[in-house]
This record gives sequence, structure tokens and C-alpha cells, in this order.
Amino acid sequence: MPPETNQFRGAKVLITGGLGFIGSNLAIRLVEQGAHVTLVDAMIPEFGGNLFNIEPIRDRVTVNFGDICDRHAMNWLVRGQDYVFHLAGQVSHVMSLTDPFPDLEWNIKGTAVVMEAVRRSAPQAKVIFSGTRGQYGPAVQLPVTEEAPTNPKGIYEVSNLTAEKIIQVYNDVHNIHSVLLRLTNIYGPRSQMKHSQFGVVNWFVRLALDDETIDLFGDGQIKRDFLYIDDCIDALLMCATCDAARGQVLNVGIDQPSTFRELAETLIQVADSGRWRFAPFSAERKAQEPGDFYSDISKIKRIVGWQPKTSMVEGLRETLKFYREHREQYWQSPPKPRLRLAS
Amino acid sequence: MPPETNQFRGAKVLITGGLGFIGSNLAIRLVEQGAHVTLVDAMIPEFGGNLFNIEPIRDRVTVNFGDICDRHAMNWLVRGQDYVFHLAGQVSHVMSLTDPFPDLEWNIKGTAVVMEAVRRSAPQAKVIFSGTRGQYGPAVQLPVTEEAPTNPKGIYEVSNLTAEKIIQVYNDVHNIHSVLLRLTNIYGPRSQMKHSQFGVVNWFVRLALDDETIDLFGDGQIKRDFLYIDDCIDALLMCATCDAARGQVLNVGIDQPSTFRELAETLIQVADSGRWRFAPFSAERKAQEPGDFYSDISKIKRIVGWQPKTSMVEGLRETLKFYREHREQYWQSPPKPRLRLAS
Repeated sequence: MPPETNQFRGAKVLITGGLGFIGSNLAIRLVEQGAHVTLVDAMIPEFGGNLFNIEPIRDRVTVNFGDICDRHAMNWLVRGQDYVFHLAGQVSHVMSLTDPFPDLEWNIKGTAVVMEAVRRSAPQAKVIFSGTRGQYGPAVQLPVTEEAPTNPKGIYEVSNLTAEKIIQVYNDVHNIHSVLLRLTNIYGPRSQMKHSQFGVVNWFVRLALDDETIDLFGDGQIKRDFLYIDDCIDALLMCATCDAARGQVLNVGIDQPSTFRELAETLIQVADSGRWRFAPFSAERKAQEPGDFYSDISKIKRIVGWQPKTSMVEGLRETLKFYREHREQYWQSPPKPRLRLAS
Repeated sequence: MPPETNQFRGAKVLITGGLGFIGSNLAIRLVEQGAHVTLVDAMIPEFGGNLFNIEPIRDRVTVNFGDICDRHAMNWLVRGQDYVFHLAGQVSHVMSLTDPFPDLEWNIKGTAVVMEAVRRSAPQAKVIFSGTRGQYGPAVQLPVTEEAPTNPKGIYEVSNLTAEKIIQVYNDVHNIHSVLLRLTNIYGPRSQMKHSQFGVVNWFVRLALDDETIDLFGDGQIKRDFLYIDDCIDALLMCATCDAARGQVLNVGIDQPSTFRELAETLIQVADSGRWRFAPFSAERKAQEPGDFYSDISKIKRIVGWQPKTSMVEGLRETLKFYREHREQYWQSPPKPRLRLAS
């Protein structure tokens, strides 16, 4: 169950990456609960920051444009905060393989800047970090528990593992209350839709809405645990207010894995547009495809009491509804009239 | 057994951190074997670089002063190399807890610069990386195997783990032949002696030579596997020429652990100077003391055929001999005449 509404009333909250997918959804929930929320976002063009994301709360949050690597600004921004949700970062596996340096800069150095700022200027603040299931690398055993080996297969994933380990040191050595989450594939309203470099479910949603063809690699039978954003926000909020979560690494996923084919079929059915086909793996994609992956979430259930509540049909319906209403805020390609296609 | 002498004859070898402790000892061995050796070193004052370290081979190696984060220089330096021993880095746990940024810069970004340079300009080169046993954090089970969890307790150790994971990605995804070593406490000639921020055995050697008192924290019973530098160099060379070591994480340690008390007593006996006493842990030191640690080296024995050969008495004798002869190149404090102390 989500935390009691009044747990965040009056709380001061900083969200790095606050104009991005998860950050903006989190901000909306926190503002609804009466928190004083400040968002930091560098608005790096390829990343997820979008001012429209916070349109429902635009006049009730403080927006601070800036890079988390800016030490002086971060020292100032963390002051007096009760919670720091550290969500900013480069999030594309694909991009990190071409150029590793953005990941080192934002995901690693940026995390150290945030944690040093907290240590110096807000040592009482609670830090919640959103890592990725990619930190594990290919699953050795399914579902994947927090004790599984971590052999990531890309610099993006390595940089997230590093961020987690850095924050763990601040928790253990410098006594900064921290919670370390490893998120699975999250989808839903407010994710960027401009390109397919990250956020596969949302990219499928765009293709369906544009009545395009979704390519399923291989036989479409690879399994993932796709989690709807509202469930993810519940997890973030509950972990922030749960003392027993301190210093813990916790999977945030869903114990009902689906195949990519199930995802595509459900999506096309709910959207009533789009289609899918099998597509061969490229050699590069094949080499990097980690295979089936889904999280064991028994630890977060036990310690925090969180569990996902949204079915795939429900989550996709909400996502489609949001982007149908606000498509022009997220991508430029016009919907193809189906009639013309059929002609 | 060390590799056949002719395996490196005519080979082109780049050593980052080449004027430091391990780098210079490695360079001397490689030059003796007929390799063409280039050393890169940034000569950062608190680190281990010392031009005197390569005095025996000064006119037979190429020395290139420079920072491994210098992308253009590194692109140039890796060209045509058969082997890249990547040893450069910030190596002090203590320093990393005060200021995390040097570790992120040199140990993480520097490693990415080296690996990008290899990928672009020397994809055929074999990379040998020297990580640290600190990557494990406190031992969960003794001796510590390569499969043990990695929960490092400092930014230095986190940054080394990150460097290893980055190189592993280049091995797996970009097809760069790499070997990932995790070194235990190494001691011997050519380690810096100016301060006690890293290299505990060598610091004890300095205290003994200066006829000073060695403080043993707690009851002196904490166990470590102290490895003599010549054995470490054997391991580096043998791993470089062993095809089966590719992509492997390998402990480089010694399966005969000693207590700090045994170390101090042996040292004082061999040196015939110095003394030791018990000293209380500071609260900070106590919090960070990982307890007993020694490596399981069965994997490197099995795959590479390496094993340590030097006894502690032998290793300490050689170390004392070197610093007695060359003290003025390593530290300034004059030896205290024992007669005066006794008066």
C-alpha cells in the first residue's frame, strides 16, 4: 500500500532529474501529498527532461535548471532537504557503447557530487537512488535476487552499479541514510518518445499510436518484467519512509513476467492500432541481448511492504490515453490516418 | 614459473603508472627480457611515481610524462603496442574518503580513456589490469575467492571495481583481450615511502629502518596475505601471455596469511632495528577495518600456473637491503643513531 498521505506533508524534497520520466511523476505525487518539491534538471537534449511533464504542478514546484556535476549549486540545493531522490543520469545502454564518457560524468561523478553535497550540507537527508536491473548483467538464475552476481554488459550499467556502490559507501562510512533501488523496465506517461535509445515499452506505444509496425527480435519469447510507473512511484515513496530499507539494495520489478510478444499483442489490442512482425537480430544486438530477465521482489515485499498493483492492460491503457491527449508535447510524427494506409 | 624469457623479446609494451611501485619493477623485468617498453606517468606528487625507480633501465625505456585522462596522448601512446599494463591510479583508501573526485578522475575516467584508446588505436593489444582485493570489501568467507560478493568500503575500492567492470565490457563487447587482476597487499623495493597513506608493509619497513615504533592496532592478530613484488611481477607477466586468462578475474595473493604482529616481529628481527607496540583503534579506523582478509589463489594457479615463491623473511630482507642502499631517494628523515636513543 502507498504511504499515508500525510507522511510527506510539509516535507522538503529534492529530485535530481526532476523533469524526466520518473522524476516528474514522483514530483506530481509528492506535491499532491503536500511536500515542498525542488526539481533539478540539466535538460540535456537526448535525455528525458521535458517541462510539459510537470504541467499539472508547474506553479507548485521549484524548478532549478542545472547540472548535478555543478558542485556549488548542488551544495546549495540540498540544504534543508529531508529527502533527496537521486534520479538524474544518462540512461541509454546504446549511447554508452558509442561514448562512455557521458555515463562517467553524469552517472558516476554526478552521484559523487550529490553525495558530497549531502554529506557536507544536508547529512540528515534521506537519499533514494534509482539504479537499474542492468547492473546484474545476464541473469544467472531466474527470478533474479539482490544477491545475484553483478556483471553488467555496458558502460551505462557499470556506471549505475558504481553510483550504487558510491552511495553505499556514504551510507556505511559517512552515515548518510540511503536506499539503493534496482528498477526493472518502467513504462507509462511522461517518458520521452523522441527516440528509441531507451524505454522500449514506451517506444512500442508510440509505434502503436502511429499505427506503425513493431519489430520483435528473434522469436519474441524473451521475458521481462514490465512495471507501470505508478507502481514504481509507490515503491520510491514507501522506500523513502521505511527505516528498515536503509542501506538495502532492493529490486523494484513485477513478479509476473511477460514476453515481448505478449506485450506487443496486448498493446495493439488495447490501442486498436499498430501491428507487429518478427525481425532478425542484428549481430551486435544478438551479442548484447541478455536473454530472459525478471526480478525477484520478495525482499522489497518483506522489508517495505510494497508490491505492484497495475495489470499490463491497465498500465498500457493509461499510457495510451496520456499520449493520445498530449502527443504533440512528446513527438512530431503525425498519426497516419488508417484509411489512407488501407487505400 | 615465470614466463620464458623470450616471450617478451621484441614485444612492444606500454605501462601506465610506469614510474610507480609495480610499474617500475615490471618495466625492469620486461627490459631485461628484451621488450620495448614505454612508461606513462603523471607524476602526481602524493602518488608513487619516482624517476629513480627506473634508474637501472633509464636509457633503455621511453618515458612519457602525462595524464592517462589525456585522450589524444593516450590514443597516440597505445598505437602499435602488443601489451598494455594498466597500473596507473589513485591508490589510497584514506585519501579517497576525504575527496572522492581524484579516484573518479584517474581510476574510472582514466581507465575509460585507456580502453577507448585501445579500442580505436590498438584493438589487438592485450590489456592487463591491476585491481585490488579491496574490491571485495570485508571477507564474507576466508580465503576469499573471485566469486565472493563485492561490497567495497571506500571510494578508492569502488573506483577500482568500476575500472575492472569497464574493462570487462571492453573485453566482452568490444573484443579487447583483457585480464582482470585483484592484487592483495604488495610490498618490496620501489614503493613510495614519503607517507603512510598506502603501502602498509613498506611503511613498517621505513619505521624499522628509522628505528621507530610500529603501532599495531587492536591485538595485532588481523590476518593479511602480504605478497612480495617479484611474485606479483611474475603473476602480471604470466597472465599477459596466458590465453586462458582472457576475460578472467584473478586473485593475486599468497595462501600463507600472516598477522600484523608476525609481520612486525619478523621485520624487526630481520632489520635488527625498530620496535612495536599495541595501539588502540581510532573510532574511524575501527569502523573501516575490514578484519581478516586473505585471497584464495587456486584459480590463478589452475588457469595460469602462477604461484608465489618468496617467503616473508626473504621478501623483507630484499626490501630492507634496497631501502638501506637508496634511502635518500625515497624519504628525508635521517636514521636515528641507536646509540643516541639509548643514551
